[in-house]
Amino acid sequence: MGFVKRNVVAYIDKKMQTNDVAIGAIRATGIAHNIPIISDEVAAFMCTQLALVKPRQILEIGTAIGYSGALMLMHSEAHLTTIELNPTNYEMARQHFADLRLSSRVTMLFGDAAERLGDLSHNRYQLIFIDAAKGHYLNYFKKCDKLLDVGGLIIADNVLHKGYLAGEPHPRRQRTIIQRMNQFINYVCKQPDYTSSLLALGDGVLLAVKRKV
Amino acid sequence: MGFVKRNVVAYIDKKMQTNDVAIGAIRATGIAHNIPIISDEVAAFMCTQLALVKPRQILEIGTAIGYSGALMLMHSEAHLTTIELNPTNYEMARQHFADLRLSSRVTMLFGDAAERLGDLSHNRYQLIFIDAAKGHYLNYFKKCDKLLDVGGLIIADNVLHKGYLAGEPHPRRQRTIIQRMNQFINYVCKQPDYTSSLLALGDGVLLAVKRKV
Repeated sequence: MGFVKRNVVAYIDKKMQTNDVAIGAIRATGIAHNIPIISDEVAAFMCTQLALVKPRQILEIGTAIGYSGALMLMHSEAHLTTIELNPTNYEMARQHFADLRLSSRVTMLFGDAAERLGDLSHNRYQLIFIDAAKGHYLNYFKKCDKLLDVGGLIIADNVLHKGYLAGEPHPRRQRTIIQRMNQFINYVCKQPDYTSSLLALGDGVLLAVKRKV
Repeated sequence: MGFVKRNVVAYIDKKMQTNDVAIGAIRATGIAHNIPIISDEVAAFMCTQLALVKPRQILEIGTAIGYSGALMLMHSEAHLTTIELNPTNYEMARQHFADLRLSSRVTMLFGDAAERLGDLSHNRYQLIFIDAAKGHYLNYFKKCDKLLDVGGLIIADNVLHKGYLAGEPHPRRQRTIIQRMNQFINYVCKQPDYTSSLLALGDGVLLAVKRKV
């Protein structure tokens, strides 16, 4: 990790820290169980994008323990549909949404995102957050494109993968994931009906806004 | 400069590079004359925010040679009001807007932004870009707040000032500017009617979305 200087990340995180006690509890659980959750800077950034997009329907690929989902619900008036493959995470997220009295605003789907996304073909979303298996982002994006309204936003997290995509030394077994993520970034940046931007935020964030063509 | 690893910045810039010949000419002029212009990553990011906000009226504090202004005009249908203090920059920007046939969509104001902003009190903007004298950002923000529509976005560039704000070693004469910029960031982050986010992008970008209170 860490392609931004530590002191700069620490400065940003300190300024962006939320004082929200309820959501802080999920954050603490994530840290205690060593489950990756989005950083304070990514969380604050997502809140600005939610304030701009004002989504009615949000789709999330990768619920994890519900931290990002809860954050998005608390900073919008949207309904959230969220997909998770890991049964332990799924149950923890369910409990977290219940604890925060958010359950009525969440549709939780269990299973492989590539399959579950097919079930959603009649739905439309204004914001889609991709934070799941890094080797499948391109596949997810192609499926999500069909579900996203014009004017909507796709946010993909962890796309720079510890800087490996920019040439940082990487373990050999990561090669396929790095190649696939690079293909995903190239594909998104070339889409004529999307305006895209890559941010050195957290572990790398890709933004893609769907425009009229 | 440089709180993000060089190879990561280079990777992002390469992916974000615009092939737009017209705007590329202004970029080349900026580089040739050593006049700071926004980086490719900041430019791409601004385009995504323009696609989300769809402003009708944009206000810019700090025209420089018109690169960011031209970029914002070419990626929106907005009218741009832009303020510049330096007469050489002002004339170069005027020429650049004319070269790109954008003059009819630009109101150029010459002079000190703190004064000129007072003349705009009857106008309303949906996007305001602050890229001017670093010691005056808080003053600019307070004035811009009065001019920004609810749902509008303020983007301030160069707010991390080479990482000095995060404790990077700095020349003694920069102390006042660093203190003032820090006050500006603290002030914006505490505003109850704004959702804010600090990004390690270019030389540091602050986003502030005005919400309903």
